[in-house]
Amino acid sequence: MNKSQLVEQIRSKASYLCVGLDTEKGKLPAAVMGFEDPVFEFNRRIIDATAPFAVSYKLNIAFYEQYGVEGWESLAKTLAYIPTNCFTIADAKRGDIGNTGKMYARTFFETYNFDSVTLAPYMGHDSISPFLEYADKFSIVLGLTSNQGSEDFQMLETPEGKLFEVVMKKVSSWGTPENIMFVVGATKAERFEEIRTILPHHFLLVPGVGAQGGDLQSVSRSGLNAEAGLLVNSSRGILYASSGDDFDIAAAREAQILQQQMQALLLEKGII
Amino acid sequence: MNKSQLVEQIRSKASYLCVGLDTEKGKLPAAVMGFEDPVFEFNRRIIDATAPFAVSYKLNIAFYEQYGVEGWESLAKTLAYIPTNCFTIADAKRGDIGNTGKMYARTFFETYNFDSVTLAPYMGHDSISPFLEYADKFSIVLGLTSNQGSEDFQMLETPEGKLFEVVMKKVSSWGTPENIMFVVGATKAERFEEIRTILPHHFLLVPGVGAQGGDLQSVSRSGLNAEAGLLVNSSRGILYASSGDDFDIAAAREAQILQQQMQALLLEKGII
Repeated sequence: MNKSQLVEQIRSKASYLCVGLDTEKGKLPAAVMGFEDPVFEFNRRIIDATAPFAVSYKLNIAFYEQYGVEGWESLAKTLAYIPTNCFTIADAKRGDIGNTGKMYARTFFETYNFDSVTLAPYMGHDSISPFLEYADKFSIVLGLTSNQGSEDFQMLETPEGKLFEVVMKKVSSWGTPENIMFVVGATKAERFEEIRTILPHHFLLVPGVGAQGGDLQSVSRSGLNAEAGLLVNSSRGILYASSGDDFDIAAAREAQILQQQMQALLLEKGII
Repeated sequence: MNKSQLVEQIRSKASYLCVGLDTEKGKLPAAVMGFEDPVFEFNRRIIDATAPFAVSYKLNIAFYEQYGVEGWESLAKTLAYIPTNCFTIADAKRGDIGNTGKMYARTFFETYNFDSVTLAPYMGHDSISPFLEYADKFSIVLGLTSNQGSEDFQMLETPEGKLFEVVMKKVSSWGTPENIMFVVGATKAERFEEIRTILPHHFLLVPGVGAQGGDLQSVSRSGLNAEAGLLVNSSRGILYASSGDDFDIAAAREAQILQQQMQALLLEKGII
């Protein structure tokens, strides 16, 4: 999926919601436990319930990989089930030297046909460039993350600005808004205005709304651009809105609440 | 495996060689192609051939993960085959927020029983700490990498020194030399002396000898400490020393050459 197709989906659904499929075996409701692959069954019902309100699904690879071969099978089935008009994200935070980077790109863009993958910038240009060679695929590079540890290195001062600013400036020069996005945590709402001066046209993937305490309104008011330019992720708030067998109904309700808030913000900004 | 067991192995084998199992399907010799799992068969013969000369094996996860479920099966079989007196490294370069970090730690330390895993530092403390909770397991954090892209961010000046120095100082304060190591590329031989002033007691995992052009002698002369404190990795130079069916004999020869050079350096420094 390319950028204009993503923007079209955002306009048509009046939503920039990304649902994070951080599915935990220990939190699965009884209703899915009898199935051969309970993780996939849970994901399937979450996707069915939330697809009217979401434009994107993010699979956090750690949650699948921890179960070895079985987990990768659940992941593959889930990915295949996501409607083709939704933008898919492999939340993998990979980053390695050139020949290894190529392997990771092959994994997420060929073995698994994701639209995008999250990447860590520490190793620099040759750890990102193999991913940029794929047409209509995106590298989503860590910029300013939502966690407390983001203070440790990302906020360090350098002669060219804070480390996360240098990362955004330099990485964005390696590609275009058509193949690079950045992760910016919702817990950093006060930084979005400044970030938009560095990256006026790039999409930002924004985790941290909900469980992590980020605020949709303030992030959106300073983060939205003419094409929306945001994908706001909610994982636990949607997946575990109910711990009972009505989990999918509760997930749909939570997703719809977020979609309606997003619709109002998109209207306010004149984007739809 | 804990640090003193690793040091004991280094002394007993007179070697600090790590063999990198970056096994590529396209480079497998005819002799292993008839087997059900040619990647495992290749690894098995490489391990048999090199175990007398190596104290550690590093599995680059990208090379396995790209084949999906099948790749993870080759990885699991290979890991199980490595002799228990060798230190095992999951070269995964992971790094994510706390609850996801926990999953990655579970993957590499429980689902797969690796002794260590490589981690990227960009997300800070809570992306590393879940790994430090495991006894006798190591987090091997990217410090100064061997690739060209290491110039992009790792060398940035900050008020507390270059970024890679800040990473080494800060990350080492989160644990001890008993549970943290750092990656320092062999292509940065001129930096080892300075790095040893920051990290006198930590083990350093050193990739980049051989194919990437690093020099064993200069790295060792400034990097070895009283417990050796180095694991020097060679991947392509050993695995593909011969492209024919004598690949294991050629691999043993290459590993032995490195081991003999290491023995001389260990003797020179009075470590054995």
